[in-house]
Formats: sequence, structure tokens, C-alpha cells
Amino acid sequence: MTQPTRRQLANAIRFLAADAVQAANSGHPGMPMGMADIAEVLWNDYLRHNPNNPKWFNRDRFVLSNGHGSMLQYALLHLSGYDLPIEQLKAFRQLGSRTAGHPERHETPGVETTTGPLGQGFANAVGFALAEKLLAQRYNRPEFEVVDHRTWVFMGDGCLMEGISHEAASLAGTWGLGKLVCFWDDNNISIDGEVEGWFTDDTPARFESYGWNVVRGVDGHDPESIKAGIDAALSQFDRPTLICCKTTIGFGSPNKAGQESSHGAPLGKDELEATRKALGWAYGPFEIPEEIYAGWRAGGTGTLRQAEWEQLFDKYAAQFPAEAEELTRRSHGELPADFIARADAYIAQVQAEAPNIASRKASQNAIQAFAPLLPEIVGGSADLAGSNLTLWKGAQSVVGDDPQANYVHYGVREFGMSAIANGLALHGGFLPFDATFLVFSDYARNALRMSALIPAHVIHVFTHDSIGLGEDGPTHQPVEHIASLRYIPNNDVWRPCDATESAVSWKAAILRRDNPSCLIFSRQNLAPQARSAEQVKLIERGGYVLADAAGTPDVILIATGSEVGLAMAAKAELDAAGIKTRVVSMPSTNVFDRQDPGYRESVLPHAVRARVAVEAGVTGFWRQYVGLDGAVIGLDSFGASAPADKLYQHFGITTEAVVAAARAQLAN
Amino acid sequence: MTQPTRRQLANAIRFLAADAVQAANSGHPGMPMGMADIAEVLWNDYLRHNPNNPKWFNRDRFVLSNGHGSMLQYALLHLSGYDLPIEQLKAFRQLGSRTAGHPERHETPGVETTTGPLGQGFANAVGFALAEKLLAQRYNRPEFEVVDHRTWVFMGDGCLMEGISHEAASLAGTWGLGKLVCFWDDNNISIDGEVEGWFTDDTPARFESYGWNVVRGVDGHDPESIKAGIDAALSQFDRPTLICCKTTIGFGSPNKAGQESSHGAPLGKDELEATRKALGWAYGPFEIPEEIYAGWRAGGTGTLRQAEWEQLFDKYAAQFPAEAEELTRRSHGELPADFIARADAYIAQVQAEAPNIASRKASQNAIQAFAPLLPEIVGGSADLAGSNLTLWKGAQSVVGDDPQANYVHYGVREFGMSAIANGLALHGGFLPFDATFLVFSDYARNALRMSALIPAHVIHVFTHDSIGLGEDGPTHQPVEHIASLRYIPNNDVWRPCDATESAVSWKAAILRRDNPSCLIFSRQNLAPQARSAEQVKLIERGGYVLADAAGTPDVILIATGSEVGLAMAAKAELDAAGIKTRVVSMPSTNVFDRQDPGYRESVLPHAVRARVAVEAGVTGFWRQYVGLDGAVIGLDSFGASAPADKLYQHFGITTEAVVAAARAQLAN
Repeated sequence: MTQPTRRQLANAIRFLAADAVQAANSGHPGMPMGMADIAEVLWNDYLRHNPNNPKWFNRDRFVLSNGHGSMLQYALLHLSGYDLPIEQLKAFRQLGSRTAGHPERHETPGVETTTGPLGQGFANAVGFALAEKLLAQRYNRPEFEVVDHRTWVFMGDGCLMEGISHEAASLAGTWGLGKLVCFWDDNNISIDGEVEGWFTDDTPARFESYGWNVVRGVDGHDPESIKAGIDAALSQFDRPTLICCKTTIGFGSPNKAGQESSHGAPLGKDELEATRKALGWAYGPFEIPEEIYAGWRAGGTGTLRQAEWEQLFDKYAAQFPAEAEELTRRSHGELPADFIARADAYIAQVQAEAPNIASRKASQNAIQAFAPLLPEIVGGSADLAGSNLTLWKGAQSVVGDDPQANYVHYGVREFGMSAIANGLALHGGFLPFDATFLVFSDYARNALRMSALIPAHVIHVFTHDSIGLGEDGPTHQPVEHIASLRYIPNNDVWRPCDATESAVSWKAAILRRDNPSCLIFSRQNLAPQARSAEQVKLIERGGYVLADAAGTPDVILIATGSEVGLAMAAKAELDAAGIKTRVVSMPSTNVFDRQDPGYRESVLPHAVRARVAVEAGVTGFWRQYVGLDGAVIGLDSFGASAPADKLYQHFGITTEAVVAAARAQLAN
Repeated sequence: MTQPTRRQLANAIRFLAADAVQAANSGHPGMPMGMADIAEVLWNDYLRHNPNNPKWFNRDRFVLSNGHGSMLQYALLHLSGYDLPIEQLKAFRQLGSRTAGHPERHETPGVETTTGPLGQGFANAVGFALAEKLLAQRYNRPEFEVVDHRTWVFMGDGCLMEGISHEAASLAGTWGLGKLVCFWDDNNISIDGEVEGWFTDDTPARFESYGWNVVRGVDGHDPESIKAGIDAALSQFDRPTLICCKTTIGFGSPNKAGQESSHGAPLGKDELEATRKALGWAYGPFEIPEEIYAGWRAGGTGTLRQAEWEQLFDKYAAQFPAEAEELTRRSHGELPADFIARADAYIAQVQAEAPNIASRKASQNAIQAFAPLLPEIVGGSADLAGSNLTLWKGAQSVVGDDPQANYVHYGVREFGMSAIANGLALHGGFLPFDATFLVFSDYARNALRMSALIPAHVIHVFTHDSIGLGEDGPTHQPVEHIASLRYIPNNDVWRPCDATESAVSWKAAILRRDNPSCLIFSRQNLAPQARSAEQVKLIERGGYVLADAAGTPDVILIATGSEVGLAMAAKAELDAAGIKTRVVSMPSTNVFDRQDPGYRESVLPHAVRARVAVEAGVTGFWRQYVGLDGAVIGLDSFGASAPADKLYQHFGITTEAVVAAARAQLAN
């Protein structure tokens, strides 16, 4: 081989993908073979990155939203010189490899976000592009475009069918994200076959209705056509671009190209051989000639590019030291040095002031206290700013080009919101929070899971946390949600009982670097609880003794959020009856479960089995804390529409019920 | 008052709504006041219904997708003569009333579906319209249009921002649902204010991109303009219609019209008074003059309309008795008389044949056995027919006009799918099932909740139920999902351990009239378990003793699905060591929990506390069955990408682990 052709460079992707899938006997060869030519043109002619430093801050972001084609990304990373040696590609989909079935950010250098759940990579990318725009308009100065990169997305029909594509595309259009460029892999095939029976949208017209720049009719196997499409995207600046690429799934496979049979299964040995012949590929599995590598390697260029940027940044830092320092701090995900001290001072102040307010209001107060300290915070709500109480003095809409912009009106788009927030966090430089009613966490559910899986440092604010929201009724009353969210691995759920615990939950979520939290707040007022300074400190451990009896307690009451008040009232009655009662406030079971056994034993002594848990939600969850012999006061049915106090009575979540359950425990 | 004007008729809605919200001190007056004129024209001039019989099968369906405007619907039902007296309107949002904060089908006659979670009413309506189309093409005969009604939808900006609107609109366009007519309440306001900052779609162009008929520029306060819009919709037959109505939110309120302040809070006494003056409404709260009632009442016309239809149906029945009988049976939601006997015979046959197959395959076999008996079944999958195994011989795509059509290729649209399935069920005449991978139940999560809350008789099929799916990795491996789904009230989750339990779960789900079930199946093969006929019968109780020891067991192993095999292997080892071991198979904790205490005690004797639960998912859930002193073998982290057997070893979900946990129990 002399100088390889573009097609030969692309064929390297095709065979790495098809051979890896064959070796794993599992995977998706069709998409990498179909999009190889587009990838080749983009990566070799346009993408500004540095394989030697996948974390270079000003790199272009590349997102494979159709993540089942993971081998395309692994092939690109390997060929262009990232730390992903050929052995890793040979171990595709094997335990311990860095080449999982779907691309995973926390495992593979150069993977910007974990994809596979369709449509979400695209929404993450909208978050990347928004992050770039906001950082650029805050930090760039004339002749110092220190933040200046594009976000490139590959997406398939599946991404476009998903509802989240509507939410994210609509916002990208409204925000005018001119540096977002998406390639639609228009191959007319999804898993069930040719898409005519279920996907008849005029997609270009749809994206134009969102205000996008749409490039129609690109031949996804013709480099010149692809280049023309990209150049058309780059020639405008205030609209995101969709490049519509006609491709053939499984391109090159004589008997499977253009068919769903190439989508999600190995081609098979014979067909692979036939494909080698058809494409004139004379090399064995995982064998890449040096000329091909030479045509791909991007490490040298990348290092040079980064060095030039660093030079620029040094000059910028000399001229704008405060901005440079702040941007550097933010890009490293570090908090200001004094943040913890100031947060603790605020928490102590809240405990001293002891306001009787809804925890959603306490949350807003905490935002007001912390956001001015943290320019990296970018907040938002799904059209419920006034109900979630997520606005603060200093919040500025991201619409337009305000350098202080830090607030997103997401509209009624919960799923898109949380996936975009994931993207904002993953880009670097931001600590996003989003918000909706707790019951509508359902709409965003898989994005919340992805926050935890990727993971991404996002704070999800959920207000109106129980039947306590009252009249809006069962469609709006969460019952199973708190328990369900606690079960997402790596996701810290907090349900504070008053203003102090609310402030602590915000602090904990902010400090939880790289990982998400869900903060769950009430609509109704919650009375403040008395605490010593030591008790205030213990809140951070997720569960602690809020009020105790002398000596070993006869009974332990465990409660969260709005039900801590009930438990405290029950304790008063039980104390009066001579029953030694401990109240454990448990704002975060997830955090409590991570404490050392000694601490947990000190809060919930193994020997004390008379236990009553109370939470206005499903009861089964609490059995892990009260056992088979304890009692749980809660709600295992849907709620109802009525004033909140009536509902608590109706469903029997009352002081009397807690007292009765405690007495019944002791009678056993 | 002499003959009231249309505006006066509409004003009756406005004041019923505003006064009820004022009385409740809670609710949403803005939308009813804004859409009152449209509602007046639709209900008085077009809607074919019968207030005296809200369940008349051939009625038009009316769906309030922007359900926060519930008082609009209650006012319409009251004024037109449904069984919703004025006392109910006075008790808006109070405990025990039939006028909940959001419309609830199970509480209020004339409410076709429960709405409030935005976008879902619209998707339900797509299901209604599809149901009508499918029944019509199956049962209608020349001159016998026994199924012939429209589906009308009110929707707001919020519905249109939600991603589910994309999924449902796309399918409605593909299916050419010509009898679906939607009114877009284009009032330019959502909760956060004027929508320019977050909703800039060209909505008419967007719906045209889905193949809809779009009527632009209707003045939603001008009856002639509204009529022209509706007439334009009725003049075509093969495309759904979106009528774009410019309206003023809170129309009539001098100081709050056109502003978000009228959206979700009472107008206030003074403003209500001012609105009375502005609209010339001389009546007190809840006072409706007889002339206004006279202009609204539709009971007589409705009864006549139904009588005419029944006459037609009688003639149809005479000429097509089999069709008439089947349609009647289906419309009543009754199963064929011999269904249970045939289902039981099939189950016995499966137990006898004892195939070693994946439970997803066993599910397909059950579908193949039952669907030919049940023409009401309409199946489907979100682009995973070949993976979910939801196709059967006799499945016919709903695209086109095949009278036998019974299978929906939903495309990659999980949320839209489940909400449409809810609509199919609520329409009557259908028993829908839908399907996707279990992990993507997240995408449909709130529609699953709505299945249970409305409730709707839908069967949700979820395959690839654990790390057992293997190489696709953690984005595709459910961990928290089974437990989370079990917590949705009124939702029966089944996770069968072999082909027999799979068939029983299908039977149970089919028999669970009016309520939903989630059937959870494996990708990998599951060995058949031996059972007596009596044990086969016990499967229906959700949990039962699959294998026992003589006398009181020393230890109880509880397992579901693919882990039952592990428990049985562990029992063999423990038995050999002289440890009396019981294995409880628990395919449905929800169903087991509903059994009488005596039965539950017979399966899980209170006194036997040496217990080990094993399930490849989060462990906390199982504490309610094993207590604080038992053990749970499961997985509290995300999975990984590798072959399934490697993953079970890696995460320690093994026979050895179960044996060790049992021994540790007994050593305590």
C-alpha cells in the first residue's frame, strides 16, 4: 500500500468494527460500516482534538449518540492515537476491558459521554454546546478566544424517533447553538427493518421548524459531499446544523448491506470474508498496515494545537488574571478554597434563625447563599421556576449573550433538561442543577440514571415531594418516587426535614464531586428542629439521632422530611408515657448506608428492635431499617386531591398512628 | 336573559371555573377561561356523545390533555347534563369529591382518561383514534358503520414541549388517523411566563413534517373562526388535524388576562368581581340561569343519538351475528367463556413439556397460544420485535387497512408507546401489550404509573431483565428497575423463573381486568422446574413453595426469575449437608402480598428467620421478606459489559454465595 485512499482509511474502521464484533460474537457492525466515511472525513479534516490529552479543555467534543455503534468510536480513538491499544479492541465487550458494549466515559479515554440509551447523547451534546457558548461569552476577550470549540454528534433514526430529540433540538434552536453540528445517519433501517412503517417524519423540515440550519442530501459515502456538508455548517454561526447523510448500513457487506441483519449481530465468518473481498481489504483481523495508521494519527497535530492554545491562554492569563484563574478552577472542577467554611457558616446561621418555612423555600435560600460563591452553578427548571423556587438574585437567562448567564428556562421538557444538565456537567466548568416536581422525575428517569452511571456532577432538585402538595391530586403526588430514586446506584437522595437539613443537603450535593444528588423538598412549611452544633455536623452523615432518651431507648422512630415533625410529636407523647424514645432523622439513606458500621450501630443499635419508620411514601422500602418486626407508617396506594392536612388524616400518617405503632411494638 | 349568546354560554364555563378555583383557593382558572369559546363550539355543535350514558361505545372521545384546566371539563360535563351536579363543582379539589385537581377517569363520569402529566393525554388520544380505526376496519360493513367516532383533544404549549408529543404525533401521522382532531391552545404563556425564551418552535410546520393536516390562524375567541377550523378538519379523512387557536389565557380578567398570573392560582375576589363586570356576568358563584343550561343540555340529543346507533347495531347484529357478538364481548372487556380452561390446558402442557428456553421465548410461546383466542389483543414493541420476541403467527401490522391488524411497530418511542397503549385499553375493545428492554421502562416510566393510576388494562412486556443480558453492558442492564416497578401502586410485576411461570404470568395479566401488569423476562435460557399440578396452580398466588424439606425448614431461600435455578442448586448442596432447605419461588411479590395471612405464613413462616433472598438486582427491596437478620444476594451497583456467566461470577450472584449465606444464617 502506498498513500491510502480515504476509502481505505475508512475501511480500517469497518474491519476493526466487524472483526471485533465477530470476535466478541456480539455487537453492532452495521452502523460503524455505514458511518465510517463520514467519521473519516470529520476526524481527519475537521475535528480539533488532542489524542495525547483527552482532557484538553478546548478540544472539540465528539458524541456518538447512536452508541450501539461503539466500535466506530473505539476504532477512531485507536487509529488516531488515543490510549486504546489494539489489545483493547480485541477484548471488545469482555470483562475488565476499556471497550464496553456501549461507550462509557468513565472507562475509555476520549469518550465524552456514555451513550446507548437513544437520544440522550444528542441531548448531552446540546449541553456541551451550551456550556461552550456560556463559557465563551463569559471569559473570551477580543483576540482571546480561549473557549472556542465545536460539538459534533452522530445520531441515527432511533435517536430521532425518541421524544428527547424533540426537547433537545427545540432548545438548541432557541439558544442558537451555532457550534453544534449533527450528522443524521439516514440509512432507512432500524431494528424492526425498513422504517417506512414507523418513521415517516420529514426530518429536515422538522429541524427547520426548530430554527436549525439543515443540510439536505449529503451522500454519506462520498467524502466531497460530506466535506461540502460540513463546510455549509461551518459557514454560519447562530444556528445549530443537521447534516442529513444518506448511508448504507453495513456498507461493504455483499449480502447484508442495507439490511437490518447487519445492525446488531456479527456478520459471520463467511460474510466477513466476502466483505474483505468486496472492499479489497487484504489484512487479517485487527491487522492495520502502518500506512493506514499514518493516515490517521492525530497525536502530533493535537499536541501542537494544544500547545498553541496554552500559549494563547498564558497571554490571556497575564492580561486577565482573575478570569483565567476562575476559568482554570472551574475547568478543574475545584471549589473556591473558602467554600466549605462559608457554607458551614451559612448552615450555622440557618440553625440559629430556625425559620418555619417549606423546604423548597429553604432550598431557594441555600441557592441564594451558595450561587454567588459559585459562578459555575447553572440552574434551571422545567417551567416551574416559581413553584420549584429555583430563581435567585443574580440568576440571568441563558437566552441572549449575557456574560453572567446562569439560568435555563428549560420549558416543559424534563427528560431533555436532565440530559442537557448531564452534558453541562460533563463539559467541565459547570455545576448544573435542574428542577421539576418530584412526580415528574419519572419523565427524566433514565437521564437521572445516566447522571449516576456516567457519572456526572448534577444536582436534581425535586419539590412537591408527597401528598403534602395537596389539591393537585394523585397525578402530581409522588408515592413510590423517593424509594425508587434511592435505588439508583451511586445516586444520593436527600429529603431534609427543615431549613438546616436543606442547607446541608445543598452543601453535600455541591461537594459530591463527579456524582449526582437528588434533593427532595416539600411544598408545605416544615417546623425547624433544635440541634446542637454537633448534631448539625452529623446531618452530613445521612442519618443521626435528632432527639434521644437517657440510656438505651425502648423504641426508635425513624423519619425523613415532613414526617420528622410527626415523629418528634410522637416522641413527646411517648416520653410523657414513660417510654424512652429515640428519634432518628434520616435525610439520606444512601449516605447513611455508606457510614462505618460503628456509627450506624450507634444510631440504630442492632439490639433495639422496637422501631417505627414514618415517611409519606411506600412502606416496603423501610423494612431494611425496621425489619420484619418493626412498623412502617406510610402510603402504599395513590394519593388523592384535597388539602394536605386532610390527606395526612385520611391516609393515617399522623402522630397518633406513630404513637400507636410504637406502643404496639412494645406490647409484642 | 333571553336566548343566550355563544359568548354567554362560554362565560358559564369561565365563571364556574374561576369561582370553583376561588372557592378551593387552589387550581387553574386561566386555561378554562382561555379555551371556553372553543369548548362551547365543539361541545354544542360537533361533539357526538350522550351525557345520559358516558359509556356509550360509539361516542366521540374528548381528551383534555392540558389537564390542569380540569374545571373546563367539569363545567362542560355539568352544563351538558352528565351526572356531575353543582355540589360537586362546589367541592372542587376536596376529599371525596368527583372533581379532583386533575381529571380522573375512575372518579368522574365522562372523563375518558386521567390527565395532568403533560403530553400523555394527547398520546392516549392517539391510542383512542387508533382503536377506533382498527375496530372500524375490522367490524364495519357497507352501510353498517357501527364504529364511527372522532377523538378530540385540547392541548397547550406544555403538551407540545414534551417529547412525548413528538412520538405520538409522528405515529398518528404515519397511521393517518383522520378522525383525530387536536386544538392547540396557542396562548403564548406557560408557567414561567411568555414562552419566547423557551418555546420558539414553528409548531404548524412541525406537525406538517409529521404528515398532519394543519389549520393555521384560528381565532380561539371567534365562534365562526373556530367552526371554520373544525370544518376544515372534518373535510379530510386520512390525516390527523391540528387546529392552531390563538387564545388569551384568563380571557375576561381585566388585570390578569394574557398573563401567567392567571394560570395556576385563584384570580382573587376583587379580580373575579372585575371580571364579572367586564364580561357582563350578573350571576353569583355557581349560579347558572336556566336559559344557559338550556343552551348547553345535550342529554336528550345524546339519548336519541345512542338510540339510533343501537337500532343500526341491531340490524348489524341480525346480518353479522358473529361480528356483533365479538364486538359486544370486546367492548364489555369480557374474555371468551372458554379462555381460562384453554389457558390452564396450555399451562399444563408447558409444564409437561418443560422446555429449557429463555423466558422471553416462553413469553412468545404464550402469546402464540393466547393471541389467537383473543382478537382484542393488540401487541407491539418499541423497535425490538425480534429481541422482545413479541411477534406471533397472525400478527398483522396496523399500518394500512388490514381488518386483522393487531400489531404496532412503535419505533423507538417507549413513552409514546405505553401512553398510546393506555389509550387503546381505555377506548374499549382492546387488550394491548407493549414491549421494550426492561432498562428502557425508564423512558416510559410515567406512562406505566398512569396505567396503574387511571387504571388501564395494559400488559407491559420487558425483556433483557438483568446483568444476564451480558455484553450490552450497564446502560442496558437493569439493576433497580424490578424493585422500582413493584413500588408503583396497583401495578403487578411478574418475573417468572421458567416457561410455566411465564405462561401463568401471561394468564394472570390477561385476567387482571382493568389493571396493568409488567411481565419481566430473561434474555438467557432458564431451566424448567419440576412441579406438581397443585404447585402449578399455586403460581397464581405470586409466591409458593417450589421445593421443600420435611418438617420445619432450617432455612428458606427466596428467589425470582433466573435466580430460582441458583436457589435450587443451593438447596441441593444444603440438603446434602443435612440442612433442611425450603425454596420459595416468588414470581410476583405484588400478588403474594395480597394473599391472605394464612397462606403467606404457610410459605414464609414467621418463626423461620434464617432466610436468603436472591435476585440479580438491588438488595434493599428484599429486606421486607428476610428482615434485618436474613441475607440478600444481589447487586447494588451498576453492571458491566461481559458475557453473562462472567458477570454472575464477577458480581457474586452464585450458588456458592447462596450456600454460604445460608450457612452463615444458621451459624448466627
